[in-house]
Amino acid sequence: MKIIKPYKKDFDYSYTSGAYATIEMIKAKPDIIEAVYIHSSFCKTDRLVALCQSAGVEVRRSDRVFSQINQKENSYVLGVFGKFSCQISPDLHHVALVNPADMGNLGTIIRALVGFGIRDLAIITPAADIWNPKTIRASMGALFHMRFRHFGSMEQYMSGFPTHQIYAFMPDGRQELRPDSIPRDKPCCLVFGNEANGLDPSFHHLGTSVKIPQSPLIDSLNLSVAVAVGAYVFTL
Amino acid sequence: MKIIKPYKKDFDYSYTSGAYATIEMIKAKPDIIEAVYIHSSFCKTDRLVALCQSAGVEVRRSDRVFSQINQKENSYVLGVFGKFSCQISPDLHHVALVNPADMGNLGTIIRALVGFGIRDLAIITPAADIWNPKTIRASMGALFHMRFRHFGSMEQYMSGFPTHQIYAFMPDGRQELRPDSIPRDKPCCLVFGNEANGLDPSFHHLGTSVKIPQSPLIDSLNLSVAVAVGAYVFTL
Repeated sequence: MKIIKPYKKDFDYSYTSGAYATIEMIKAKPDIIEAVYIHSSFCKTDRLVALCQSAGVEVRRSDRVFSQINQKENSYVLGVFGKFSCQISPDLHHVALVNPADMGNLGTIIRALVGFGIRDLAIITPAADIWNPKTIRASMGALFHMRFRHFGSMEQYMSGFPTHQIYAFMPDGRQELRPDSIPRDKPCCLVFGNEANGLDPSFHHLGTSVKIPQSPLIDSLNLSVAVAVGAYVFTL
Repeated sequence: MKIIKPYKKDFDYSYTSGAYATIEMIKAKPDIIEAVYIHSSFCKTDRLVALCQSAGVEVRRSDRVFSQINQKENSYVLGVFGKFSCQISPDLHHVALVNPADMGNLGTIIRALVGFGIRDLAIITPAADIWNPKTIRASMGALFHMRFRHFGSMEQYMSGFPTHQIYAFMPDGRQELRPDSIPRDKPCCLVFGNEANGLDPSFHHLGTSVKIPQSPLIDSLNLSVAVAVGAYVFTL
């Protein structure tokens, strides 16, 4: 049996940790799964085994693998899967994250986007590792419902999707984010900068710059909050 | 000189950790501050000292206090303050959090609410400690711009604010959250349950139950995301 090591970015596999994200993966992408490991302390084994069987997913009962990966949280279910590549839709709304740095934020954003029905995500590198078990955990498994692709620059993304209307979220955006000022007939790309620096001023000229109305008492909104509010408004 | 110990919930004081939150406290509530401690490695001492002086806040230069409190992050500024009590406004929108459990979420929520201009917060206990330095840090100091009060039950809150229209956010809320369905002329209270369990079904009968439209692909939105979207819509 393959030895599962604590995750590193250059691995060609990763794993879900915990039953919730693992179940989402089984439902959304059974084909990528190498095996689901179940610890002897897990109390809902029968149901999970039945789900795996109906999806054609191999189950391995092993406690050792859980100590091999040195996880901090006590999870009793691991879903080992091979990394895969996706295409993002040419017709639907996108979100583009420019250099997101925090895995927890990235996962929370993915969870919110899937919640609001935006399932196409462009990530401009360098960026937090979307495959890291921490990101997957923060996404509550929503990662497996998302189509995502990495791009080396915003220009590279835009040359692939030239008809998407760019909405760059910036604290000094020219247009306020209001439900009645959003086009409802064209695919848009909502662009957000990273946690520390936001988008650089050149983004004012790439499309429409928008700001979420906010009090001067705060410096900025949390990135996942800003993305969620943007996604809510564009999908109303 | 008083010895500053690692924070505990039953202390009558707490502290900001880091320059950003400390500066927000100096600007918003200089009267509560016992002293601002500056580490010898802090590089913008002159500006911070000038701000303290103009606000009448005592500055103490000490490295020892930073090791006394055993902080994980390396911060070079600490603002020690006495806990205080607030009144919340009888006329403005409120948010009520029922048993919020996570200090990071609570701080992020406070930051977003202040950003959207909702500065009155009711917390139904038991709840994560709003005074904990982790909460304050996650709020980026926005806590000091917030009026907040703790209540032992939702009933106790409602008896104090009988004219606020209750909007209970629930996944099976009867009304969808849409900007055009929100009253713009009355003070409202937006009520949210805790991270794990949401609000119990009895909240359907306390006022209007609302749901944020969301895909069945996710179980729920992150609490801070849900509160932020609610606050955005009610303050449009």
